[in-house]
Amino acid sequence: MDMIDFQTKPDKYKHWKLAFDGPVATLSMDVDPDITLQDGYALKLNSYDLGVDIELYDAVQRLRFEHPEIKTVIMTSAKEKVFCAGANIKMLGGATHTHKVNFCKFTNETRNAIEDASEFSAQRYLCAIRGTAAGGGYELALAADYIMMADDGNSAVSLPEVPLLAVLPGTGGLTRIVDKRKVRRDLADVFCTIEEGVRGKRAVDWRLVDEVVPGSKFDSAVREKALEMTETSDRPSDAQGIALPPLMKNIQQNNITYQCVSVDIDRASRVVTVTIRAPEIDIPAGITVEEAVTKGAEFWPLAVCRELDDAILHLRLNELETGILIFKTEGDSDVVEAYDGFISRNQNNWLMREIALYWRRTLKRIDLTSRTTLALIEPGSCFVGVLAELLFSVDRSYMLEGQFENDDRTAPTIQLTAVNFGSYLMSNGITRLETRFLGEPETVDDCKKVMGQSIDAAACDKLGLVTYILDDIDWDDEIRMVIEERASFSPDCLTGMEANLRFAGPETMETKIFGRLTAWQNWIFQRPNAVGEKGALSLYGTGARPEYDLKRV
Amino acid sequence: MDMIDFQTKPDKYKHWKLAFDGPVATLSMDVDPDITLQDGYALKLNSYDLGVDIELYDAVQRLRFEHPEIKTVIMTSAKEKVFCAGANIKMLGGATHTHKVNFCKFTNETRNAIEDASEFSAQRYLCAIRGTAAGGGYELALAADYIMMADDGNSAVSLPEVPLLAVLPGTGGLTRIVDKRKVRRDLADVFCTIEEGVRGKRAVDWRLVDEVVPGSKFDSAVREKALEMTETSDRPSDAQGIALPPLMKNIQQNNITYQCVSVDIDRASRVVTVTIRAPEIDIPAGITVEEAVTKGAEFWPLAVCRELDDAILHLRLNELETGILIFKTEGDSDVVEAYDGFISRNQNNWLMREIALYWRRTLKRIDLTSRTTLALIEPGSCFVGVLAELLFSVDRSYMLEGQFENDDRTAPTIQLTAVNFGSYLMSNGITRLETRFLGEPETVDDCKKVMGQSIDAAACDKLGLVTYILDDIDWDDEIRMVIEERASFSPDCLTGMEANLRFAGPETMETKIFGRLTAWQNWIFQRPNAVGEKGALSLYGTGARPEYDLKRV
Repeated sequence: MDMIDFQTKPDKYKHWKLAFDGPVATLSMDVDPDITLQDGYALKLNSYDLGVDIELYDAVQRLRFEHPEIKTVIMTSAKEKVFCAGANIKMLGGATHTHKVNFCKFTNETRNAIEDASEFSAQRYLCAIRGTAAGGGYELALAADYIMMADDGNSAVSLPEVPLLAVLPGTGGLTRIVDKRKVRRDLADVFCTIEEGVRGKRAVDWRLVDEVVPGSKFDSAVREKALEMTETSDRPSDAQGIALPPLMKNIQQNNITYQCVSVDIDRASRVVTVTIRAPEIDIPAGITVEEAVTKGAEFWPLAVCRELDDAILHLRLNELETGILIFKTEGDSDVVEAYDGFISRNQNNWLMREIALYWRRTLKRIDLTSRTTLALIEPGSCFVGVLAELLFSVDRSYMLEGQFENDDRTAPTIQLTAVNFGSYLMSNGITRLETRFLGEPETVDDCKKVMGQSIDAAACDKLGLVTYILDDIDWDDEIRMVIEERASFSPDCLTGMEANLRFAGPETMETKIFGRLTAWQNWIFQRPNAVGEKGALSLYGTGARPEYDLKRV
Repeated sequence: MDMIDFQTKPDKYKHWKLAFDGPVATLSMDVDPDITLQDGYALKLNSYDLGVDIELYDAVQRLRFEHPEIKTVIMTSAKEKVFCAGANIKMLGGATHTHKVNFCKFTNETRNAIEDASEFSAQRYLCAIRGTAAGGGYELALAADYIMMADDGNSAVSLPEVPLLAVLPGTGGLTRIVDKRKVRRDLADVFCTIEEGVRGKRAVDWRLVDEVVPGSKFDSAVREKALEMTETSDRPSDAQGIALPPLMKNIQQNNITYQCVSVDIDRASRVVTVTIRAPEIDIPAGITVEEAVTKGAEFWPLAVCRELDDAILHLRLNELETGILIFKTEGDSDVVEAYDGFISRNQNNWLMREIALYWRRTLKRIDLTSRTTLALIEPGSCFVGVLAELLFSVDRSYMLEGQFENDDRTAPTIQLTAVNFGSYLMSNGITRLETRFLGEPETVDDCKKVMGQSIDAAACDKLGLVTYILDDIDWDDEIRMVIEERASFSPDCLTGMEANLRFAGPETMETKIFGRLTAWQNWIFQRPNAVGEKGALSLYGTGARPEYDLKRV
């Protein structure tokens, strides 16, 4: 398979159209059936593959950064009779297990990003369904704040995966119907077994959509509702968006170099090192937030986040055999602290808010990445504020106590800032420090007391901020040993273990989607009843009936 | 495989010893390696199979009903050097996927039953570890309120599944270490990769055990702690337990007849009908709770619950191809209401409390049963109080509106009582009615208003208490159609769908164990890296190294 590239831009979109009208944008799905990420299927009826979803992710991002003035996004279809037929079944049937799982994870993250836009950035989503919204099509609608459907005898919502395909509505569908829309569970059961779905008033009665409108009045009603929804938004009407130009990246066989991030792949040990660099020059003294906004995508906290996000996605999809991601940082801690504080102090500015929220999503993406994650805290590193947050995302962290021999750089320290105590909530709804110290919440308070200070290895160890502190003599051996040990374990088993250990504490709809729903879907994606020779997914479209092993497990 | 029987009693135990000393019982694991449920493995080192766990479940039940005076249970090992080596690996390696999953579910339920005994019935569990507690052995300990370990250079706790077997510590282990014991997640990660486990002070520092005691002082310290724990219990010191005699059941090819429960299996349609009968005579007027206690296991609410529990377990393990469980009730609603009210009013009596709690666990077991569950509400039925709770456990309910032709029994009604509003919390920590009406909590209040009344089909429909109401003309066809439709779906897919739709609302440690952890474990139980020809579970004990597909999913 060719490398999957997550970079795109509106004028390259093949499957979506973006239109703007004052505070309302319209994002129309108009999938070109012939432009597919892989061979062997056509994207009929507005069905999608990862390529379609990469454009959607891009659009959702740009709507936030390039269009602060947009307060409501209407999500709709440009096709006549169909809203969206969901994930393309032939694509799924032909995909490897790994691709299926990665595809679902990314599409889930993108739907969560839509909810994130509304919840945290007041950019509301209105889904306007004319035609059929089936499976992943309805799951896309479920991400919106408000769902309107034409009452025209044709438009319907459905989750036909169970009867048709023997897989789950796994892009949040099962969870969102009962947990977000709070559809009664027995009606949800019925709904999930009706291939043709539910239309009209019953769809409203069952809470599947918020409103149905006669076909002739649909467009005007949608327009009116979209305008009404803008009134709940605190997004600025007069701000100028910033452009998100293509990332500058140089991809070689074993490394990728961005401006602030480097990725080095050691194929023999199956380790990838991701190094994040602080900017070389400090944030200008006395710079105003308006001046900072003019820096746009060059502004370091945004630039580095875009690169990190792209790197993680690239590694997930294109480097399947890497087992370990090691995070390192390089540069001047004071500079990182200055940027971190600037963002933190200016959260009433729309762009600074967007940048912090983007970091939040990117850190969540790291939490959800099925690789063992480690952080190494070495001399010259700058784990401060948002970068320190990486230490609490990873599975384990290793900190050098003292200096390396023949290296005159000082012993490393880390530094907590205000952002570590509330800006970057995990999927479970609490901070990484709160999750880390579930058993001793008083330690979070102890950490607050040293906020702003340089915390050395001994103090980090005492507070429990790092997993291990090691001196120069042990460093190389210990790091080598953990890498070798990890490489000797079953990759699947590590995925399962990490997915269970990373999210202690409360559960949210998001953790349910990634924990419970995804895990069940992945199981089903392995079962012969779905993917075997006579499984439903394999036989879909052939006219042949699947043959099931009837044992209930 | 022979039929698995869940009935046993202490004088038949092969693997456990029970001893009593005032308010303290000692439950010692002493597995006979040669007495196994299936062939092909020996239960060395206090490892267990389902047969061992059936005895444990029986012991936990009897400690509650037969021994109200027991306030602390010491769980320990009768072997010299080992506490418990966990689930037997050769057994797991040779078991079908279905058996693995059912085995794990039952063992999880039994560990939850231990926690339930402490939380709701004040029967505390103290785990005394001398020797190694590995894998499922440590997971058993994790169910206890307090874990003491000998500090003797040998005793250790470990979860070696990931490095040794390429499966998860799936009997609650991963969840309980981070969510119950609140072990720091990076330390949990380290712990789960150390084959030999953790001993001594470090085990306390990492929160893996509560206390370590030098070997010479261990027994006396355990005894002292057990006595101390009795002081937190409100169990009666002077009450006389009741005996739980063997259930009277008659098993035929296609039916099982208990005294109050019948099970009829229609193999062609893969449907099992479970009929619960009300007692024929009313609860004696003016009976005191003391007199009710003397009825012991004959007391209808207890008798029927024991039979129902046994029937569900039997069906789960022995009737794998049945896809649908239909629940029916038969008898006089007033009699059921009288018993229901009696139990409800006498919750300060130890036995009445135990009976209500046993129903709670049994209803949860139904929630967790991977079969489509339906309820049929027909003339002559008695869905009242605790039996009405079944209607809110099942995936769908069907109620006859009016009478059947040529049947002079009156149209069916259902009746809610106080117990439907708080006695039988689900695994998610809220009632079934609250879960059902997440989207319209005011409906729970509307239901309260009709408590005690006979609610007919039209009113049930209006309140949303049943899925469908049908008249005589449609009844047979509709029921036949849902059965046929369900039979046409992939069994796995239904398992996944039902597991996601049944537990909307809040999550608890229990729902995490059954939702997230179990789903990941089931996935891993299907992966070649564990169960393939060269997988770790298949090769365990052969000396050969597993070969892993290195792709991270």
